[in-house]
Amino acid sequence: MRAYDIIYKKRNNKKLTKEEINFFITGYNSLQIADYQMSAFLMSVYFCGLDDEETFFLTNAMANSGNILDLSFLDGPTADKHSTGGVGDGTSLVIAPILASCNIYVPMMSGRALGHTGGTLDKLESIPGFNVNLNIEQFKKILKQNHFAMIGQTSEVAPVDKKMYALRDVTATVESIPLICSSIMSKKIAEGANNLLLDVKTGDGAFMAKYDDSVELAKKMVNVGKQFNRNMIAVISDMDNPLGNYVGNSLEMIQTIEVLKGNIKNDFYLLCVELSALSLVQTGIAKDIETAKSIIEEKISSGKALEKFIKMIELQNGNPKVVDDYDIFEKAKNVYPIKAQKTGYISSIETRNMGIISCMLGAGRLKTEDKIDYSAGITIYKKVGNFVKTGDVLFELNYNNAKIDVVADIAKTIYKISEEKPLEINLIKNIIK
Amino acid sequence: MRAYDIIYKKRNNKKLTKEEINFFITGYNSLQIADYQMSAFLMSVYFCGLDDEETFFLTNAMANSGNILDLSFLDGPTADKHSTGGVGDGTSLVIAPILASCNIYVPMMSGRALGHTGGTLDKLESIPGFNVNLNIEQFKKILKQNHFAMIGQTSEVAPVDKKMYALRDVTATVESIPLICSSIMSKKIAEGANNLLLDVKTGDGAFMAKYDDSVELAKKMVNVGKQFNRNMIAVISDMDNPLGNYVGNSLEMIQTIEVLKGNIKNDFYLLCVELSALSLVQTGIAKDIETAKSIIEEKISSGKALEKFIKMIELQNGNPKVVDDYDIFEKAKNVYPIKAQKTGYISSIETRNMGIISCMLGAGRLKTEDKIDYSAGITIYKKVGNFVKTGDVLFELNYNNAKIDVVADIAKTIYKISEEKPLEINLIKNIIK
Repeated sequence: MRAYDIIYKKRNNKKLTKEEINFFITGYNSLQIADYQMSAFLMSVYFCGLDDEETFFLTNAMANSGNILDLSFLDGPTADKHSTGGVGDGTSLVIAPILASCNIYVPMMSGRALGHTGGTLDKLESIPGFNVNLNIEQFKKILKQNHFAMIGQTSEVAPVDKKMYALRDVTATVESIPLICSSIMSKKIAEGANNLLLDVKTGDGAFMAKYDDSVELAKKMVNVGKQFNRNMIAVISDMDNPLGNYVGNSLEMIQTIEVLKGNIKNDFYLLCVELSALSLVQTGIAKDIETAKSIIEEKISSGKALEKFIKMIELQNGNPKVVDDYDIFEKAKNVYPIKAQKTGYISSIETRNMGIISCMLGAGRLKTEDKIDYSAGITIYKKVGNFVKTGDVLFELNYNNAKIDVVADIAKTIYKISEEKPLEINLIKNIIK
Repeated sequence: MRAYDIIYKKRNNKKLTKEEINFFITGYNSLQIADYQMSAFLMSVYFCGLDDEETFFLTNAMANSGNILDLSFLDGPTADKHSTGGVGDGTSLVIAPILASCNIYVPMMSGRALGHTGGTLDKLESIPGFNVNLNIEQFKKILKQNHFAMIGQTSEVAPVDKKMYALRDVTATVESIPLICSSIMSKKIAEGANNLLLDVKTGDGAFMAKYDDSVELAKKMVNVGKQFNRNMIAVISDMDNPLGNYVGNSLEMIQTIEVLKGNIKNDFYLLCVELSALSLVQTGIAKDIETAKSIIEEKISSGKALEKFIKMIELQNGNPKVVDDYDIFEKAKNVYPIKAQKTGYISSIETRNMGIISCMLGAGRLKTEDKIDYSAGITIYKKVGNFVKTGDVLFELNYNNAKIDVVADIAKTIYKISEEKPLEINLIKNIIK
């Protein structure tokens, strides 16, 4: 078998066998197949696609490039949740402690801010002292003790994905549904949870803006997960509106704590409840969504979910006092309000641009080497469907060192206000099982 | 400008600008753009193609990666001929001395055996002592003195093509018409001749088997050449039949000499005359094809063309006595005849397989590192359209160390004999100007 023949076959739109895909991925992982052959292969896949079986083979080869976590030492259901990324999308931070408080084990490995979207790890690191770099033994220990832990991907989890992703990023081969699917699923499979809940974002602020593409990706991931005998649910959720009222790291952490305290009931809270409920039913903890929701409300109102969250901060070396004293978080020195320039209904928000503005304020990374300002971000007062009068504050820019004139010029253009009230946005557009 | 954006643009089937193509090629040539980005780019071109303008820009960027030969010191027309490669296709060896004897300067840089096809350089090297590795100054001197010289591509001619071709060869991106066009034309343009005659082979023994593909390639090359203000002619010629009666290096050299002596008038001779005539008209030496052919016949019958050929051998350190004494060539020790297994007309020959058989006998390279046996090859007695009786010798295998049983088993299957006489094959199927 030669790498050339496998590229040639895929280039000619032929179906690859399990053996061929294994040969290519293990060869690449062991440096026997060069980057230039992998990039030609990836571009062939971009053009010719992979069917469900090939995608499973690819995911399997990638998952097996490292260790697959064995969670059989845990005495309850295991569940994980993954989002394809959005603006203000920090639901994992709320969902994980809720599930943990229901005795579900949640071994969560998350990512960093990428492009215009935020990352769970960066948000956690806005808590002084918080350590996301645990080794597998520490991770397992905390997981056993507190039902959940939140860390970054270790080098043992699907290592070939990291190499492949870096290559895709510089060869214009990111935007391929089977490649996105195998990248996400190889890591989720290697992380070992039996129940997987995928939140596939759609709309302007998502990586995959088109609804049909999001559905295709969701179906592919569910299908692949089932071939690994995992319980699978994928949700298609809205990203034409930023989620919640905060974009930025410490700002979103404060929102998370407020939700866990029962003080905020916005769309961010609602999505957290919907997703947690799906997971409770998926894992068999609740018999239906209604029951699940009442369990979740109790876990919040009783403070049980917050308790789990505080314990997690402690176990991962963060300062748990942040929960009671938000002044412990870094605070942005400056605030710049963006006001409505006319009266009417907010008909749309350029959500991707809101993410980019947040990055420009310092909250994210437009280049890999960018350093994050945890305190920077956006406080959102008005969202799609709200009625506003000229001069009302739509949102505020929180920043320390940004080029505020440049940022504000863009910020002023991202809300559209019209006379007619827009149709209501469905937070969840589809559920695929 | 970034390599990524150029790959992305072509991947999305958008037209690239001259600046973008220059940036990519010069960046790759100067090692600032990596192999893995070039291979992704090449695969995008494989799928999305390049239009005539983009192909011109690419050819131009590749030609300018090295020096473009200045032939203005010569006091007459300059012409070159290129074949896309076939089996028994050594016409350059006859055409160059004919043109030279008509006072056309022929700066010919040729290639080596590739896959199932032979290479001019290997054939020349079957002459003891012959040196194809001249530097540019030596090349120009001999060209001035004898009107023609035959050497290998120097590292100064379109060096980026060599890197790109090596990469295409291992990433399944060889079979792309705009890439084939720019590879051939960048070298031909850099070699500096004002008149270019391209022999694009079609049929089983050609790299491009399909007639329509051959026509597309020919049109693209003619179009690109015109944009460089070169006089262009492309011929589509048959490769469903091996050309001439010999395949192999010293065997084809002997055939060349016999043609130049006027002793052989087979299809190989006929194609040499047709192509030479086109070149004589193209360069303005002859007013029409008929006049050109009578000039050519005179140059052969008078020995003028042979004289040029002998002089070239001398000037390039070869032993010119080979012309009079074929025993100076290496001779194969063994001969294995392949005989007709029934009576009838030869309706087809698997020409590509004949090329592969010739390689297996030692005449070519199936892998780059293979060493050539100059004496090995095939002597062909019967071709398509001939009537044969059971037991007639169709062709002979000439070899020293081949696994003759294996080779003969294949050789026995490549001729089809049927009761009906097949249609006559046109040697030249189309001429594109």
